[in-house]
Amino acid sequence: MRVLSIDPALRITGYAVIERITSQGSPTYQALTYGVVKNSRKLRQSGCLVAIREQISDVIRKYHPEQCAIEGVIFVQSYKTAITLGAARGASMIAAGEHGLEIFEYAPRRVKQAVVGRGAADKQQVAFMTRALLKLTETPEPDEADALAIGLAHFYAIDSNRPLSNQADPI
Amino acid sequence: MRVLSIDPALRITGYAVIERITSQGSPTYQALTYGVVKNSRKLRQSGCLVAIREQISDVIRKYHPEQCAIEGVIFVQSYKTAITLGAARGASMIAAGEHGLEIFEYAPRRVKQAVVGRGAADKQQVAFMTRALLKLTETPEPDEADALAIGLAHFYAIDSNRPLSNQADPI
Repeated sequence: MRVLSIDPALRITGYAVIERITSQGSPTYQALTYGVVKNSRKLRQSGCLVAIREQISDVIRKYHPEQCAIEGVIFVQSYKTAITLGAARGASMIAAGEHGLEIFEYAPRRVKQAVVGRGAADKQQVAFMTRALLKLTETPEPDEADALAIGLAHFYAIDSNRPLSNQADPI
Repeated sequence: MRVLSIDPALRITGYAVIERITSQGSPTYQALTYGVVKNSRKLRQSGCLVAIREQISDVIRKYHPEQCAIEGVIFVQSYKTAITLGAARGASMIAAGEHGLEIFEYAPRRVKQAVVGRGAADKQQVAFMTRALLKLTETPEPDEADALAIGLAHFYAIDSNRPLSNQADPI
């Protein structure tokens, strides 16, 4: 089972694809890829959204994930920021929706709790733990680490049969 | 010159394509098409976003507008609503951006001021005035009327050389 995970933002969207491998009953998790969609400060908002949709679609076509986990709605400074974050998030959701992926949402605190054991963990701790848990050969960049952590949080949730959130994609 | 105008929302996005025809120096405006992208209450958010992008893309491919005018950021009840509205708005902006359209933004009050002469005009007045100004044979539905009004407001702004807003698509 493969999961695409997304930490959305207009200028830098982190993504990861994690695979669960079950051998002798116990699951292990492997990062097949991770990276960022980076948009230049010179690119207009619509250009950023187009790039996010296209590059996330490329990742989906290459790695064939079956589900998508995305960062939940967080408090932002202003309605304008919320509208912009919503658009960036929507661009990733369009890519996932076009490929028929189910979408699940995890609040940042829940992700940190799942991966670091503490909802208020800082970025370095998240990067350290995702590296350790996925046996990566290098420490991921912060936005990559956040995406990896969201994917791990999703696997931990489904593998422990804890109720899922799919508020990212409500009816 | 043709302009695509958009009144975005997840469940019902109004759109219009208006053409300016200049004969003997004075411009007249004609609605080439208008309608709504209507999403069932049973459709997931990602499905709605996919439908908005696809159907707005279809309109662009059919009518070849050169610019896009979209409703500006308005006050909404909550961050969650702002995130959802931002996603719906982003889906239309992706369609416009993929086709190379420049995107301009108009606040609802400015649109009503331009079309009805009063920033606090109600929906019926907007529908009545768009019908009259565009010589439509029937009264448009509210979401169609809002989209038509946004397109007219954009033409009035560019044809009177008033400064344009393109905050919908900032660098």
